[in-house]
Amino acid sequence: MNIPYAPHPPLPAALIEDLAHRFTNRFSISQAVRDQHGRDESVHPAAAPDAVVFVETTKEVAEVNRLCSQHRVPVIPFGAGSSVEGHFLAIRGGVCIDLTRMNHIVAVHAEDLDATVQPGVTRKQLNAELHGTGLFFPIDPGADASLGGMAATRASGTNAVRYGTMRENVLGMTVVLADGRIIRTGGRAKKSSAGYDLTRLFIGSEGTLGIITELTVRLYPLPEAISSAVCTFPGVDAAVDTVIQTIQLGIPVARIELLDALTISAVNRYSKTTLTEAPTLFFEFHGSPSAVEEQAALVQEIAAGHGGMNFEWATRPEDRSRLWQARHDAYFACLQLRPGSRAFPTDVCVPISRLAECIRATNEDIARCPIPVPLFGHVGDGNFHLVVLIDPDNPQEVAEAERINHAVVKRALAMEGTCTGEHGIGIGKQKFLVDEHGEAAVDVMRALKRALDPDNLLNPGKILS
Amino acid sequence: MNIPYAPHPPLPAALIEDLAHRFTNRFSISQAVRDQHGRDESVHPAAAPDAVVFVETTKEVAEVNRLCSQHRVPVIPFGAGSSVEGHFLAIRGGVCIDLTRMNHIVAVHAEDLDATVQPGVTRKQLNAELHGTGLFFPIDPGADASLGGMAATRASGTNAVRYGTMRENVLGMTVVLADGRIIRTGGRAKKSSAGYDLTRLFIGSEGTLGIITELTVRLYPLPEAISSAVCTFPGVDAAVDTVIQTIQLGIPVARIELLDALTISAVNRYSKTTLTEAPTLFFEFHGSPSAVEEQAALVQEIAAGHGGMNFEWATRPEDRSRLWQARHDAYFACLQLRPGSRAFPTDVCVPISRLAECIRATNEDIARCPIPVPLFGHVGDGNFHLVVLIDPDNPQEVAEAERINHAVVKRALAMEGTCTGEHGIGIGKQKFLVDEHGEAAVDVMRALKRALDPDNLLNPGKILS
Repeated sequence: MNIPYAPHPPLPAALIEDLAHRFTNRFSISQAVRDQHGRDESVHPAAAPDAVVFVETTKEVAEVNRLCSQHRVPVIPFGAGSSVEGHFLAIRGGVCIDLTRMNHIVAVHAEDLDATVQPGVTRKQLNAELHGTGLFFPIDPGADASLGGMAATRASGTNAVRYGTMRENVLGMTVVLADGRIIRTGGRAKKSSAGYDLTRLFIGSEGTLGIITELTVRLYPLPEAISSAVCTFPGVDAAVDTVIQTIQLGIPVARIELLDALTISAVNRYSKTTLTEAPTLFFEFHGSPSAVEEQAALVQEIAAGHGGMNFEWATRPEDRSRLWQARHDAYFACLQLRPGSRAFPTDVCVPISRLAECIRATNEDIARCPIPVPLFGHVGDGNFHLVVLIDPDNPQEVAEAERINHAVVKRALAMEGTCTGEHGIGIGKQKFLVDEHGEAAVDVMRALKRALDPDNLLNPGKILS
Repeated sequence: MNIPYAPHPPLPAALIEDLAHRFTNRFSISQAVRDQHGRDESVHPAAAPDAVVFVETTKEVAEVNRLCSQHRVPVIPFGAGSSVEGHFLAIRGGVCIDLTRMNHIVAVHAEDLDATVQPGVTRKQLNAELHGTGLFFPIDPGADASLGGMAATRASGTNAVRYGTMRENVLGMTVVLADGRIIRTGGRAKKSSAGYDLTRLFIGSEGTLGIITELTVRLYPLPEAISSAVCTFPGVDAAVDTVIQTIQLGIPVARIELLDALTISAVNRYSKTTLTEAPTLFFEFHGSPSAVEEQAALVQEIAAGHGGMNFEWATRPEDRSRLWQARHDAYFACLQLRPGSRAFPTDVCVPISRLAECIRATNEDIARCPIPVPLFGHVGDGNFHLVVLIDPDNPQEVAEAERINHAVVKRALAMEGTCTGEHGIGIGKQKFLVDEHGEAAVDVMRALKRALDPDNLLNPGKILS
């Protein structure tokens, strides 16, 4: 798979001794703990770190970085482990910094619509803790990912069409650099023109420029009214055309998701739903009761114009939760379409005007493929996913998945899109980085990496090889 | 004023010859042309470049950069010249690249809600060209600034509370690096997780990391209904409390601007308006007719609760334009409060919960100051401006302005705010950069600068000294 796994020397005994002495039972070199930190949700071959430290403070992260830097040993941050592009696989060995114990909510500033959290806080945990404040945090990449990991991969999800991605929703962060220096990027002001945008530099840097140990995120008032609906279409084209028209008219839908017939059948089986097995859009509208009603009526009219049928509304909170849980479980539902398979996921994003054409051509690739390939995604942003369900031990199937991935990425790039809308580069998409940005821009990325991590110790081999 | 103006050698004759040969009558060393490019809207002492090149293409910018880089001569980009922090003053000499002839709209993708423009296109020009498409570009920093300059300073303005700043509204850019390499950052996809966020790195970098020669910006459907209003208050506090409550309730106002009584009196004189000379909020609501009506009713109720009086509506487009033109002319109106004075402007931004306290304390500074100091701003974002109207030849007045600037910035930073919400660092705010970000974060900025411009030739002495 052309992945830059590289042989590496064992950890220096002096480093093991220092870390064990400092972190006692929060330091582990047991095979079980290492293995648990060396395999992600995708088909990328496992690569366990040489040791794991369970840190509890920013200062501890700084200590680990400093020690590892003295010994020229890689460090790899670990959050919820929900990456699908091999982000935390220790392909050059090194010490894994497990941030899951840094899971405290430092402050909720309800009056300023922001919260400061440690990186191990997950999106569901944050929203649970916000219960009763009248506020919520909208970004939801399906998995119950950690906020640190979500910032590091510039994650988004179903609400991004209305609320933006992690790029738009982090005000500032605490970051530990390769050499252990601690910096704060950004304050709590909603906007600033004070110097280089370090916050955005670290968002999406996948742990290769610094380790995020605290972040201040934007919150939003819970909408007065919420209403969700599903609607089936005679074909994927008709569904996508509905999305395009909705976005072009500027209707502020909160969510607008496409699931193809295969994905719906997987969802029905996995989540015990009884959705019609046809191309389907999931909608959600947020606002005042009258605004929600107005938006819903407009979208219903657009959908009808494209043959949309069976508009079914979920207005009770429990029905809405059930619907969206089913949507979020689509990835795992798809895996069950072929028991024993692993997912080879890919994720591209194109300008909305090219979305129908892109999905249509991709469906031709899928039709020619002997393996099941469900298609679904955040089509309001022009972003969709394929999940190629392969037997990872069958080289022909791996090659077939690579072929489809290549085809869909090439197509997206030719349409001025991107090779990944929200999964990140990790190790899986490095081969497309120059195609997308050009050699000179990737050289700039390399220069930034060298400037901040001259010894290439922070999550080496990710984004840039 | 502690500004890093530095003596510098004259331009090498060989460089002058090369540039004159290459650019003929688009190259100038005339004193008049140089002077015109060496003085901004603020009190910063003029500093003319040694030469000016009027470029027409990205390739020409690359040629100038390459030639200047060979001779180790600074290059300074110039847009509309509307900076108030000395951004384009040639404090280390060098060649000014005038981008005003690069004022073509390259493409409008109405169906994707984006447009690609050259950097010399101004915001008014873009909106004029969008006439008839049903779309508009919302960012409006008062002055009819160029979009390249707006990106370079991370500009925002009155609509930012609803539509965000340049940070949120640029999809991608073409940038020429110090050595003449041309890169493209970002595509046209609405979101991407493909590598480091080079777009955001150059936004707000004030010409110190690269020169922006093309940018793709987001457009928005013109709201179906727009309505504007002014409302006066018994005091600044009452007005600010109205703003805070509006924002905390999540009412999606498009604009919510504060002008103090002194500013209103200046506006009345300059723009021949007849506004009540009291603390005043200017509002604008965008949406469907019913949404606008609903938002306006809510805000009117909030304002009434704080003693807001004389809610006056401007629904006809010409009345609205007149109102907002008056708002945008506030800066120039203020200058006329004291004929012959120059403006010492400052601009801070704080979390909205601290805004009332910040403005109250600042008003105490103003009350103690013998010079007129109008206060106004984009309070929906927690951002406000002071314009200290000084005689620049009177050292005591300059010192007084410095004192007020210091006090308000220190106060904003103590409140987790920023020393500049939208004007940028330029030369005027460098002294606050470490106070705001800390030495280690500013060191990271220095490392980025060295990585991309090792010879310190791109707009040297700005942001970082």
